[in-house]
This record gives sequence, structure tokens and C-alpha cells, in this order.
Amino acid sequence: MLLHILYLIAIVAEGITAALAAGRRNMDWVGVFLLGCITALGGGSARDIVLGHYPLTWVQHPHYLLITGGAALLTIAVARFMHRLHKLFLFLDAIGLVVFTVIGCNIAMEMQLPVIIIIASGMITGCVGGVLRDILCNDIPLLFRSELYATVSIFTGCLYIGGLALDLPHNMVMGTAMVAGLTLRLLALRFDWSMPKFIYSRGDQ
Amino acid sequence: MLLHILYLIAIVAEGITAALAAGRRNMDWVGVFLLGCITALGGGSARDIVLGHYPLTWVQHPHYLLITGGAALLTIAVARFMHRLHKLFLFLDAIGLVVFTVIGCNIAMEMQLPVIIIIASGMITGCVGGVLRDILCNDIPLLFRSELYATVSIFTGCLYIGGLALDLPHNMVMGTAMVAGLTLRLLALRFDWSMPKFIYSRGDQ
Amino acid sequence: MLLHILYLIAIVAEGITAALAAGRRNMDWVGVFLLGCITALGGGSARDIVLGHYPLTWVQHPHYLLITGGAALLTIAVARFMHRLHKLFLFLDAIGLVVFTVIGCNIAMEMQLPVIIIIASGMITGCVGGVLRDILCNDIPLLFRSELYATVSIFTGCLYIGGLALDLPHNMVMGTAMVAGLTLRLLALRFDWSMPKFIYSRGDQ
Repeated sequence: MLLHILYLIAIVAEGITAALAAGRRNMDWVGVFLLGCITALGGGSARDIVLGHYPLTWVQHPHYLLITGGAALLTIAVARFMHRLHKLFLFLDAIGLVVFTVIGCNIAMEMQLPVIIIIASGMITGCVGGVLRDILCNDIPLLFRSELYATVSIFTGCLYIGGLALDLPHNMVMGTAMVAGLTLRLLALRFDWSMPKFIYSRGDQ
Repeated sequence: MLLHILYLIAIVAEGITAALAAGRRNMDWVGVFLLGCITALGGGSARDIVLGHYPLTWVQHPHYLLITGGAALLTIAVARFMHRLHKLFLFLDAIGLVVFTVIGCNIAMEMQLPVIIIIASGMITGCVGGVLRDILCNDIPLLFRSELYATVSIFTGCLYIGGLALDLPHNMVMGTAMVAGLTLRLLALRFDWSMPKFIYSRGDQ
Repeated sequence: MLLHILYLIAIVAEGITAALAAGRRNMDWVGVFLLGCITALGGGSARDIVLGHYPLTWVQHPHYLLITGGAALLTIAVARFMHRLHKLFLFLDAIGLVVFTVIGCNIAMEMQLPVIIIIASGMITGCVGGVLRDILCNDIPLLFRSELYATVSIFTGCLYIGGLALDLPHNMVMGTAMVAGLTLRLLALRFDWSMPKFIYSRGDQ
């Protein structure tokens, strides 16, 4: 129940980030709507397709399309006030990342998959939506450049799985994993933490 | 039967548009062939993967690969005369859009999916091929910029579903939906109609 | 057995090419790891999703993620010596192409699919990983520009299928197809062979 509410917050948040990206590319309203759906629901769809976990969430619950697309469209109306809300959005986006990660881990656990795949499932759910958004806007995906984005997802997934493996109560483990992941992401944003980069410019391959 | 002939026209038309896009990027013949297949058959494939509707059309009917790739290759031969035929291609492309949309709606209806998903299925079938073409050519997909592209697909799908819900005869509904969608697209192209754009340049997110 | 060893060499080689591409884009270590996995395992995943062949290889054998990601990370350590090894990498990448092609053909044959689909399956397995790498790095995929890349895959697949159709011994056919494909690719690289290009700049469509 709590997870469901968090999920709704997360897809709305991702829809909003999609609208802002679409606005920077001057997309029209239909494009904003579609990019909102793809960004918010793309991660879960990719996970389900990769794991063969049919039907997809939004095919079963079509109103999610309206919620996320609607959130993206509403963003157009309030965008003129958005520069004051920028930090709120980064906060919501970080919530999306950790919530999606935990949901993705959950689904892989229900399918009784190995640990590495559970973490991968969390990461795909958490990160792919944003990657699709960036590809469709013709950017290098943030995932591959940004501060601890995928790292936060892996960290959250490991805490969640580890806590459950120790037989701790589910809600406590879930809460702790999300709060810890969220904190790490916000600290990374605040203090500009990033993983070491690999810079290679020699050779022509 | 009529739908099947229209389908063949549509995949040939999409193969031709792919070849023209490939030519602007100086791709080689194999690339032209492949991009033709991906553009013409990518929409249906995406729909089938998303809905878990296996096997994919072209896996069941492999000669579609030869038809679409062949159309793309033939385009190379006649491209020097293409600037006179530009309007014909836009017309064929618009036919592809509405035909694919109706076929996509049909498949979702056979699977007894909810209305929103039927429209989404039509839109995925109609639009994804062109999106893949644009991503592979490193452009921002036309879908997100162009005149009423996705809108035409949604419009066509709504007319088609609405007509069938009123128990009107199938062929009449199908014909009307396609002609109306086609007309809307052509008017949009002719008079440069477009949806309002969302322009947002503030903030760095 | 031999094929399995070749497969491991191929995914390591593809992981290394991904790391070099990531380094040119200044990605961080997590990005290098992920891009390694996507490049090395993306072709097989795309094939399995398209053919409905579940579960995916790496979901069944999760340690492949660690092998390919690990190979990509190790590349960071040795990259300073890489410019001397550039030819070795092109060689390894070509091995990846032909090995993946044969494996892809094999899987489609086990599923008793038609000949065209068997060749397509080989090509998807051989080429898609590199295409994903290039899209995620925001390049036009090499596949659509480079010397005989897809052509080599088709050539290898045809030799392999043709040999088996003649009831020749499996290992001999496999070896011959791979060596011939590899030779063609290396000759194309050495002598700058390429397919004729299609250059079209007229019109605005």
C-alpha cells in the first residue's frame, strides 16, 4: 500500500522531468505527453520485457498512461514557476529512482531469480526510463555521465536484498534502503560527488 | 484482404522513407536495406514485444524482410528522380501511418485489451518505426516535432474504435477512419498545422 | 565446448570495445561497466526478445554480467597501453562478430525457424550490441557506416547454414564459416573495402 503510493509519486515525478526535457527541445503537447509516459513507465517495461514478465504494468493498468502523461501536460502550465521548484524536482526524481529500484528488485525476487539479476532488475527499473528520455531527446544519457545515478540504484538494491536476507521486517528494510539511497543521491547532488571518470582519447577505434 | 494489400503498400512506403533518410546520411547499401526493414517492421515488432504477442509478424512471414529491404534498395536506383516525387512519398508515408494504426488497434482488440491500450497499440504500430529510423540516423524523432503525427494516429484509432463500438459495419468503419486520418495528416502537411509547442529553457535540469 | 570458449572470448572482446567507446565520452566507471554489459550481451538479448526465446542468456547465467563488466573495467587499467593493441582489439571485435553470428543462427535453427530468420537471428546477435553502444554514445551506429560489418555477418551466416544443409560435419562447417567471415572482415579493414554508398541530399523529407 505504502509502496503503491510511492510508486504513483514516482511516476508523476518522472513524468514531470520528461516534460522539462521535452520543453528544452520545443516538443509539442503530444510529444510532451508521450515522453512523459515513456520516461515514467519505460523502466518497468524494459524490466518486464527482459525478464519475460507479462503483461506489462501499464497494459494491465492503462490509467497509469493518463496519470503520467497528465502530469507531463500539467507541467507545461506550471513551468513558468518551475525555476523556483528545481530542487523539488531533483528530490522527486531521486524518489523515483529509489522507489523504482525497490519495485524492480521485488519483481525479480517474486520470480525467484539469482541475486545479481535482482539487483540488475532494480537498476533497469530505476534507470532505463531516464535513458530512453535522453536518447529520444538526442542527448548522451545522464546515466552515463551523472553523479552516482546508477550507483545509487545498486546501493539501494543491495541494502534491500541484504536486509531481507537477514530476515529483518520487510517494511523496515524497504524504508531504510530507500532513505539511505535517497540520502546518498542528495548528498551526491549537493556536494557534486561523482565516480572517477575514464578518459581515453587515443586511437581511432 | 483489402487490409493486407494496404499493409503491403504501407511497408513498402516506409521502406522508401527509410532509404531517403539513409541516403542523407550516406549509408551503404546494406545499411539502406536494414534501415528499410527496421523502419517498416519496427512498429509492429515493438507492439508485439510490448503486448507479448508472439511470434512477430516478420518472423512468421520472413518475405516481408525482402519486400521492405528490396523497396529500400530500389529507392537507390530511382532516387535521382525523387525530388519530383516528394509529395507522393509524404502521401505514402501518411498511408503507412493510418494503415499501421488500424492494424495495431485490431491486434489489441483481438487480445481483448482495454480501450486505452488499443489506442496505444495503434500508435506504437504507426509511429515506432519512424522513431527507430530517426534514432538510428541520430536525429530527434519526427514524432516529437512534426505536424500532428501522433495526433493523426490517435485520431484514427479513436474513430475506428468508436465506429466499431457503435456496431457499424467493419469495412465502412475502417475505411472512414483511414480516410479521415489521412485527410487530417495531409491538411496538416499542406497548411503547416501543428500542436502548440512547449518551450522551456530555464533551469539546468 | 569450443563454441562456449569462443563465446567467452567474444563477450570479453565486446566489453573491451565498449570501454574504449565509453572512455572517449568520459563516462565514469559505473557507466563503463554498464556499457560493457550492454554491448557484449545486448545482441543476444535483442535476439531472444525478438524471437520470444526466454529466459535471456544472462538472466540464466548472471556471471556473464560480471565477466563483461569486469573486462570493461580492466580495460581502464590497461588503456594507457591500448594504442599499441588497437589491431588486437579490431581482431577480437571481428571474432565477436562471427562467433555471435554463428550462435544466433544456432538458436534460430533450434527453434526451427525459416532460413531468412536464421540469418537475421545471426545478424541481430552479431550486430545489435555494437549498435546499442553507438546509440548510447550518441553516434551514428558503425553498422550503418562501416566496412562490411553487417555484410560479414550475413556472409558467415550463409556459409554456416549452407554447409549444414549439405550435411557436412558441424564443427568443420562452423570453423570454416567463422574463419571465412573473419578473413573477409580483416581484409575489409586492411584494404578499406566498403559497400557502395547511397548519397542523397535533395528534397527535405
